[in-house]
Amino acid sequence: MSQDRRKFIKTAAAGGALAALLPQLVSASIIEKGSKSKKVKLSKDDVILFQGDSITDMGRNRSAKGPNDNSGLGASYPFIAAAELLLHHPDKNLQIYNRGISGNVVPQLAARWDEDCIALKPNILSILIGVNDYWHTLGGGYKGTLESYHKDYDALLARTMKALPEVKLIIGEPYAITGVKAVSDSWFPTFNGYQKVARDLAEKYHAVFIPYQHIYEQAIKSAPASYWTHDGVHPDTAGDALMARAVLEVIEK
Amino acid sequence: MSQDRRKFIKTAAAGGALAALLPQLVSASIIEKGSKSKKVKLSKDDVILFQGDSITDMGRNRSAKGPNDNSGLGASYPFIAAAELLLHHPDKNLQIYNRGISGNVVPQLAARWDEDCIALKPNILSILIGVNDYWHTLGGGYKGTLESYHKDYDALLARTMKALPEVKLIIGEPYAITGVKAVSDSWFPTFNGYQKVARDLAEKYHAVFIPYQHIYEQAIKSAPASYWTHDGVHPDTAGDALMARAVLEVIEK
Repeated sequence: MSQDRRKFIKTAAAGGALAALLPQLVSASIIEKGSKSKKVKLSKDDVILFQGDSITDMGRNRSAKGPNDNSGLGASYPFIAAAELLLHHPDKNLQIYNRGISGNVVPQLAARWDEDCIALKPNILSILIGVNDYWHTLGGGYKGTLESYHKDYDALLARTMKALPEVKLIIGEPYAITGVKAVSDSWFPTFNGYQKVARDLAEKYHAVFIPYQHIYEQAIKSAPASYWTHDGVHPDTAGDALMARAVLEVIEK
Repeated sequence: MSQDRRKFIKTAAAGGALAALLPQLVSASIIEKGSKSKKVKLSKDDVILFQGDSITDMGRNRSAKGPNDNSGLGASYPFIAAAELLLHHPDKNLQIYNRGISGNVVPQLAARWDEDCIALKPNILSILIGVNDYWHTLGGGYKGTLESYHKDYDALLARTMKALPEVKLIIGEPYAITGVKAVSDSWFPTFNGYQKVARDLAEKYHAVFIPYQHIYEQAIKSAPASYWTHDGVHPDTAGDALMARAVLEVIEK
């Protein structure tokens, strides 16, 4: 057997093993690349809010404003995570909302924050924002910069903690997967700056940080990037499952 | 301590224990009230199709016709089941579709069966149909009967097995939860007839039968009916999670 063939078999076998262990890989990724704060604690009567852009929104019915509503949660990672939490904790009276809106950058979150966050009084708040803050500068005419992303996101979190001092934060790393439709190598290293901002702010506000970039990169070892995301930005069903697994992993039940 | 108080504490404690064990309760329900055929086997390159009415449809984007598309799967039990299967089996090249359509009765499934089932060549086919076949006779003007439900559903399954002799069938029990909005006690025992038809046809065609009525009744011991379904017919997020758990339980990985 040639050395190349041996190497291929070894890699393929590792791929198979990885596939069977994906949920564990998500957990390992969070331990490896996550924050000092590893978990938020789930309690009875918790209000859980998912905030972000199209990755979170994912075609949800924005008129369905009540908690735990499948159409209001949309076919998204928040819906999968909510389903799992509601199935396993029927005694906890959880109220779970999705208020992601497609295309949003940080200033747009800030503009609707009173109504779409503070008024809901979340105990657990998951935020994933930042890909549009970079992407829309590439031709979408958006004038934001890395510095404005940092400053605006910092202000949003400060405002959140002032209004909701007890809220437990989960901050997701903006991610971008190259080699699929929307994302080219030219995004990096600039986009790493946005990722570092999210990580630094998670540290500053004692949030749990979900390293989505690393999680996707691990997943891609077991199936092509296009299996998880058709354009490098938006998850397909498998990507939603991956992200929901990460959210569930950082919530201590 | 009074006997009543003792009884309450015992019941409440059992409720808490039930809540923690919901996935196991789903499994136990299937063993208890399911069919002789308990599992279908998942294989590489499987095409999995979910068919049915609004419970399956659940606001999916009907223009998104490709497999594994979150918007095409909708915020539904098929989406949750698909997400779990795709996450755990990235090496299996699964293709998962949802073709439920709101309001459908058996003759409407039959009318679109060539395009929405046979042409997709499923290896695993999950069908949940029957609640409208009864419900829409109550004031919706539908002229179908228990006998026509039996005859038409039987013909649909015979046609399916002729076109796809190797397909593995999962037949869901039509369910209705009383005491919530749409469903009153007057549905029973008539509606039991429809449930028996689905069960008998599952037996006749060697399908795996999912006893959804029993599964919901078990779930209601740990949280009110309205937690699982807002109207007794359509699942909310927790109900979708419950049904997806049942589907996953009958697929042997």
